[in-house]
Amino acid sequence: MTHAGAGEVLVVGLGPGPDHWRTPEVSEALTRATDLVGYKTYLDRCAPRPGQTRHASDNREECDRARLALTLAREGRTVAVVSGGDPGVFAMAAAVFEVIDSDAAARQILVTVMPGVSAMQAAAARLGAPLGHDFCVISLSDHLKPWPLIERRLKAAADGDFVIALYNPASKTRPAQIFQAFDLMRAHKALETPVAFARAVGRPDEQLIISTLAEADPATADMATLVIIGSSQTRFVQRPGAAPWIYTPRSAPDTE
Amino acid sequence: MTHAGAGEVLVVGLGPGPDHWRTPEVSEALTRATDLVGYKTYLDRCAPRPGQTRHASDNREECDRARLALTLAREGRTVAVVSGGDPGVFAMAAAVFEVIDSDAAARQILVTVMPGVSAMQAAAARLGAPLGHDFCVISLSDHLKPWPLIERRLKAAADGDFVIALYNPASKTRPAQIFQAFDLMRAHKALETPVAFARAVGRPDEQLIISTLAEADPATADMATLVIIGSSQTRFVQRPGAAPWIYTPRSAPDTE
Repeated sequence: MTHAGAGEVLVVGLGPGPDHWRTPEVSEALTRATDLVGYKTYLDRCAPRPGQTRHASDNREECDRARLALTLAREGRTVAVVSGGDPGVFAMAAAVFEVIDSDAAARQILVTVMPGVSAMQAAAARLGAPLGHDFCVISLSDHLKPWPLIERRLKAAADGDFVIALYNPASKTRPAQIFQAFDLMRAHKALETPVAFARAVGRPDEQLIISTLAEADPATADMATLVIIGSSQTRFVQRPGAAPWIYTPRSAPDTE
Repeated sequence: MTHAGAGEVLVVGLGPGPDHWRTPEVSEALTRATDLVGYKTYLDRCAPRPGQTRHASDNREECDRARLALTLAREGRTVAVVSGGDPGVFAMAAAVFEVIDSDAAARQILVTVMPGVSAMQAAAARLGAPLGHDFCVISLSDHLKPWPLIERRLKAAADGDFVIALYNPASKTRPAQIFQAFDLMRAHKALETPVAFARAVGRPDEQLIISTLAEADPATADMATLVIIGSSQTRFVQRPGAAPWIYTPRSAPDTE
């Protein structure tokens, strides 16, 4: 696809927090990249390497970052586009392909996406096995999509009795939407449904709050929080000396 | 929670295929475990270690495996319960907590779940960024849940215009359900919706088949296949010398 000596783009995810959740494939990519492009918070998690150039940017500039990476690759550089988590889940991979889609010349560039552990998976591991069966993954941010579509998806997720993982549940500019989402959930799901707020999982300020749909306080959620809302089958398991486990059994009763 | 010298259970996932998708946390757990418990196919992917005992079993014996692991831990062993992919996504973590839920004594045992890269993430990375926005994850197996619940979830996933990742789409004993699922999808989604069959991603026999809902042949899917069906926004990007990329933009139009 590309000739020898051509540049390339490596779209990588660091995992949710500690280095031990970063795949060896990604670590190797970060070693051989000549350039790192990404949100400053993520680049700060990459060990500095002599001769490697860092292009840090603010959040919310995903397409600018993707264009820069593709431009550098066209100049022959090996460019790692760095996300947290998995680059393919609410992260930079979609932005890279949006830019490629709008720029025929960019389709010549060798692009490799490398999967990673996403925040919902780290949260689930800490909580037990809440994603052990069918689930939906929804970003609550209406920065790029209309709120009615988000409500439609929340409603469909409740209709399907899915476990629901919510990304981007709230921010300083969007404090109200998580309350609207909980209102909708309470109208459609049992109030005893297990709910968890998993904040900064794997980082020193990790915090897990376990509750029910009736009692959960949506104000608990911020941009660093992953919210999980159970299905009708999701259960607590009490244990001594620690918060209860939450899991979703692999089986569902024949009650249709 | 446990006294010094007590055993423990480490619920780990190897990732979808090659070692470079296995997290360092999991590799370290496999090194210090005294016992490995798992489906033989997965244990065969773990390097043998002197003094380590392997308890290989057939597939479909998840609860027996979980019970064995908890029993060994109670005897003071450090037991790794080994899944492919992420143990929290259609894998052993839920089975472990089902057994703990039914056995109060098991709740004393130290259990740590370690997240991993799941098959849908590896498939998405190879294809582009199909899971770049809201998506649903559904197992098509009716081994433990009624088929009407699966149909209800497929219908809800279509109603919510989610991207859909299907695990366990077909097996020798369940050849027809993927056809039923595609019939349902064709009745509810646009026929030009991108579809991908990603088989054995990361393994030597990896195969990617890219199609549309109209043209996809459900017979392509087997137990090693992850099926991805796009949302109304999911797009192809043609490129020279290779199959098109598939991605789902981060934005959705305001058409509600």
